[in-house]
Amino acid sequence: MKNPYLTKKVETIEVGNKSIAELLSEMAKTGFQGRKLGEAFEVWEAMLKKKNLTIIMGYAGSLSTTGMWKIIAWLIEERFIDVLVSTGANVSEDILEAMGGSYYQGSPHVDDSDLLRNKVDRFYDVLADELEYRKMENLVQDFLSELDPNYTYSSREFLHIFGEKLSAMGINSIITKAFEKKVPVFSPAIADSGYGVAMVLARRNGVKIKIDHAKDLDEMTSICERGKGTGVIYIGGGVPKDFTQLAAVVRTLTVGGETEIPHDYAIQITADSPQWGGLSGCTLEEAVSWGKVAADGKKVTCYCDATIALPILAHGLGEKVKERLSVPDFSWLFGYQTAKARTAVPQ
Amino acid sequence: MKNPYLTKKVETIEVGNKSIAELLSEMAKTGFQGRKLGEAFEVWEAMLKKKNLTIIMGYAGSLSTTGMWKIIAWLIEERFIDVLVSTGANVSEDILEAMGGSYYQGSPHVDDSDLLRNKVDRFYDVLADELEYRKMENLVQDFLSELDPNYTYSSREFLHIFGEKLSAMGINSIITKAFEKKVPVFSPAIADSGYGVAMVLARRNGVKIKIDHAKDLDEMTSICERGKGTGVIYIGGGVPKDFTQLAAVVRTLTVGGETEIPHDYAIQITADSPQWGGLSGCTLEEAVSWGKVAADGKKVTCYCDATIALPILAHGLGEKVKERLSVPDFSWLFGYQTAKARTAVPQ
Amino acid sequence: MKNPYLTKKVETIEVGNKSIAELLSEMAKTGFQGRKLGEAFEVWEAMLKKKNLTIIMGYAGSLSTTGMWKIIAWLIEERFIDVLVSTGANVSEDILEAMGGSYYQGSPHVDDSDLLRNKVDRFYDVLADELEYRKMENLVQDFLSELDPNYTYSSREFLHIFGEKLSAMGINSIITKAFEKKVPVFSPAIADSGYGVAMVLARRNGVKIKIDHAKDLDEMTSICERGKGTGVIYIGGGVPKDFTQLAAVVRTLTVGGETEIPHDYAIQITADSPQWGGLSGCTLEEAVSWGKVAADGKKVTCYCDATIALPILAHGLGEKVKERLSVPDFSWLFGYQTAKARTAVPQ
Amino acid sequence: MKNPYLTKKVETIEVGNKSIAELLSEMAKTGFQGRKLGEAFEVWEAMLKKKNLTIIMGYAGSLSTTGMWKIIAWLIEERFIDVLVSTGANVSEDILEAMGGSYYQGSPHVDDSDLLRNKVDRFYDVLADELEYRKMENLVQDFLSELDPNYTYSSREFLHIFGEKLSAMGINSIITKAFEKKVPVFSPAIADSGYGVAMVLARRNGVKIKIDHAKDLDEMTSICERGKGTGVIYIGGGVPKDFTQLAAVVRTLTVGGETEIPHDYAIQITADSPQWGGLSGCTLEEAVSWGKVAADGKKVTCYCDATIALPILAHGLGEKVKERLSVPDFSWLFGYQTAKARTAVPQ
Repeated sequence: MKNPYLTKKVETIEVGNKSIAELLSEMAKTGFQGRKLGEAFEVWEAMLKKKNLTIIMGYAGSLSTTGMWKIIAWLIEERFIDVLVSTGANVSEDILEAMGGSYYQGSPHVDDSDLLRNKVDRFYDVLADELEYRKMENLVQDFLSELDPNYTYSSREFLHIFGEKLSAMGINSIITKAFEKKVPVFSPAIADSGYGVAMVLARRNGVKIKIDHAKDLDEMTSICERGKGTGVIYIGGGVPKDFTQLAAVVRTLTVGGETEIPHDYAIQITADSPQWGGLSGCTLEEAVSWGKVAADGKKVTCYCDATIALPILAHGLGEKVKERLSVPDFSWLFGYQTAKARTAVPQ
Repeated sequence: MKNPYLTKKVETIEVGNKSIAELLSEMAKTGFQGRKLGEAFEVWEAMLKKKNLTIIMGYAGSLSTTGMWKIIAWLIEERFIDVLVSTGANVSEDILEAMGGSYYQGSPHVDDSDLLRNKVDRFYDVLADELEYRKMENLVQDFLSELDPNYTYSSREFLHIFGEKLSAMGINSIITKAFEKKVPVFSPAIADSGYGVAMVLARRNGVKIKIDHAKDLDEMTSICERGKGTGVIYIGGGVPKDFTQLAAVVRTLTVGGETEIPHDYAIQITADSPQWGGLSGCTLEEAVSWGKVAADGKKVTCYCDATIALPILAHGLGEKVKERLSVPDFSWLFGYQTAKARTAVPQ
Repeated sequence: MKNPYLTKKVETIEVGNKSIAELLSEMAKTGFQGRKLGEAFEVWEAMLKKKNLTIIMGYAGSLSTTGMWKIIAWLIEERFIDVLVSTGANVSEDILEAMGGSYYQGSPHVDDSDLLRNKVDRFYDVLADELEYRKMENLVQDFLSELDPNYTYSSREFLHIFGEKLSAMGINSIITKAFEKKVPVFSPAIADSGYGVAMVLARRNGVKIKIDHAKDLDEMTSICERGKGTGVIYIGGGVPKDFTQLAAVVRTLTVGGETEIPHDYAIQITADSPQWGGLSGCTLEEAVSWGKVAADGKKVTCYCDATIALPILAHGLGEKVKERLSVPDFSWLFGYQTAKARTAVPQ
Repeated sequence: MKNPYLTKKVETIEVGNKSIAELLSEMAKTGFQGRKLGEAFEVWEAMLKKKNLTIIMGYAGSLSTTGMWKIIAWLIEERFIDVLVSTGANVSEDILEAMGGSYYQGSPHVDDSDLLRNKVDRFYDVLADELEYRKMENLVQDFLSELDPNYTYSSREFLHIFGEKLSAMGINSIITKAFEKKVPVFSPAIADSGYGVAMVLARRNGVKIKIDHAKDLDEMTSICERGKGTGVIYIGGGVPKDFTQLAAVVRTLTVGGETEIPHDYAIQITADSPQWGGLSGCTLEEAVSWGKVAADGKKVTCYCDATIALPILAHGLGEKVKERLSVPDFSWLFGYQTAKARTAVPQ
């Protein structure tokens, strides 16, 4: 009798000339996290080939400082993702570079008090010029004064019209690209970033803008409801992952039924671990218990720093996937939002 | 000539009868994370003995489900912390228990699709009854309808008056205790939790409550500005840590000076690691470069699961610290907030 | 119908006056790694109460430098362990202190090239005086010249007679205590430590001592075979864990039967994680597939730095367990080994 | 005045058609572990271009089961490494496949007691047929009876003549390739693996072979002494790393001088972390304090699962490095070892 567990062989890698996509496909037949990176590639590819799927990316941390942000912009350009859920850091710190500034290569083995004296901010081994950072925050602050203080914005609306402004200014950041491609960008803890710094400074000058994250969650739930299936890709955990997972729960509850409507596909790239009990590191299996991810859905977690996994996956997809056949239509979401939105739209 | 590095001996632990506080003091003379746990104890004790210090705790993840929440309530009761910054999960999931519900001991080695069929939600090895969870969310939803839809709340205001309500109902959760002790509680990504679920369900029924996290950051900055020094204690990272660190940056910018006004003391308990570049795992040294933590401040990071470190530290403090001499006065913050606040307060 | 998963409640911790053992028992009813630490305490206690169990500890890394080694000596003294499997580092670096030397408290944020100039060796945040280190290695080297070059020693034999010598010299290290209490100590990669350094220096002077780790594995298998059940406690992973696990596999194969004879109880304290696929971080469940740990055995993994877990567990046991009722008899192993062993015993 | 820290810009990745080597070079200009992977590539390339460097690889864990072993064989074939230091697992488990057996793709979410019933051994998500595993161990056991019981082998000698035997049998494993290319392979804890299992079973049948790891360390030190500089590449930590690092220390002591002779180049791929204080996760900076790695040497640690990093680095090197100019001559080491070695060589 055939052993039920011994059915799918590990295939040993023979080094040779191959493309990134080919290497990833071979890695998918190995073991440990190398296999998982290969499987993540395969699942993402399957998402792109699935008709009418809405692909939502959670994008955590301060990854934009590391040279990753143009990959996100490219994913939006190619429409390899349909919705972005980001920390405030990730969709503000890219603007520093898009404005002409730079991040710098540094080391974690450094005297941080000397960095402080030199007005240099450190992100592990990446350095920022504090003055360029403030310049970016000042741009946000200027924008705030153009907004309607009587309107309650979702972060998605806020980032859309800020993207519009940046587009007009020729500042080609992630949200600029998202504006141009009509890709919604949520930042459900936006005050916890340079945006928040700008908002408090504006408040102290009498400019109070209202951003409502319950409205975000409502909109995100609607995106799931109106779509024909969802796939999620989590680059790190944090609020971007938690918020996107939560939309599946809300969706179930708004329908009022007893049958959960989870995400159909899920990829998670994380450097966290399950045993600490947090949402950032929890398995996609745990998410099944909540009805957040489908029990029979294609799902893969790869434990790896995003700065390794993301460039490799993106280049593999670029080689292998020529075009996405269908993308969700968000005209219901963006229809009313023109340049006038910021002054005229009632809540 | 004396070797400059060989000045402070490691002291080997002799097993014997001792209190938790005594053991922690001995661990502070060892090495690796055991030393760090001991040092964290010493730094917390130093904070409690420092006159007029404002002690802010960041409390991340879903730790309240693990039996930790009464420790937080006790820290508030004893005024061993003055301000709490929490995930929405941590100040909602405790309410489930405070309402009479329970969490259950489970295992991560389980069939999650069977949990789903049994309406059981999993947090690593802790299980929740989905129906009790909804009951808690329903309580939040009921509360939302009592609020003023024209007022823009900070999460601190929102949680204060919800704590007031829970107090009146005899539901003794963290925010109940915080209400009673006039300890401000912030939740700067509150929609990303059961609160958000309740808010969306309420929105779909026409109840739209506005919570403004820029107002939170503004208030938190004011707390720092009005205090005579700050100490921070981070249980995990996430938005609670990031937000609290950010307040130091905002404080510097509102003053407009070039001299940073960082937090004076800092303790961090985390299971994350610096090398992934995120804020949750970054060192307190990195925070020095930003002006978030004082270069010469007492600071200690202990890499350890909070469910180990927190009970041990709390019991050690309970043994050793009989009373805190002075606590910051928050009457300026709570003065106007009576039971009528929720209907009558102008923005 | 009762939900099959919701049977054993999490119990929230109420801070109050309690012993370390009481706190550990309460932690065993919480969640995440705090629960695991409490459960590890309970399983160790159960091992101590089980009649005729042989308790084997794997002790990895360079933990003796951090003040932990006297805890190990105490566990041997109390006979809370019966067999020790250690890295060479852990049973040599303690000798440095037992000889009157010291380790020193340092920081990982340091200029290591300056440490080099000052002849200081760093272990994360613990510092050693290179010259004291060499003094310890010289003591080993002197001992080597007393041994029989024609005899092939197991590391257990080698460490036993070295313990005898240290005992005579009044140097009270781990192996001294083990010699005195007739507790076997294995070090199955002993050349990979200061012992190896001493051995190579001795070889260059013509002194060639033979240590045979297959003999170690043979002896360890015999210990398992002659006992009436085994319990294992892994402080870290590495060769000490792997070797001890392997003994269960060898035991099954020497019997020649098809029924595995795994370890009956297992505790693992580790800071590694399963997802990297290594033996150090793998779950005790994975060990079940190999027949290394019993499927129905009491087993618990606690993900925690040993310098936190070990002192707390040891003090809890010291409070709660007054005496161990029965310990395995190793006279068959030590019978022939007198002071003359080193010159006269045939292989 | 130019800010001293802001000199080397991070360069954002533009997705496009490129080779693996090109992508790695771009990653070297980003941040976090992606940069480190790119830098590891650059340092390895620099090692290959350096004349007369001896390149030593430490290869830990049970990675050969995951499809990685042919990459190691390829590195030996291309002479991109000169010396291999391996766990016993890594140079025995590959033989299972080289003999015609297979590993299988599995899942960590599995019932391990059912695996046990089905005679399947699990390595995280890789499965082995227990009977094939024993077949491999039997091959080792047969080989043992061909060896000279009066000779004391280094593991390097042992693996060399076993490689010779496998070569004759047409079993193309790592040590087969190493035999053919005259690349020394050390396994300084060889009994802690299937080799040890075979050795104990042989001992019980009266066949006692002596393997001496002090001899290994002596040989490895000689390799360093006779070379004109050393570069080390650690795939994981464990004994392979520790042993190789130790050789630098021994080398310094055998010379008897006060000036350390550390390794000149160092690459470390690890999933461990420094804060646990172990050698596997410690930084290469820590190694500087010991004189194990040169203070001014090119060194880079990349925190990443080896199953991700190794295939990518190998393919990048294959694309970019056509030929290694010079390799160390090991004829002094292998000169005497002919097929007769196993019976006739005196110690």
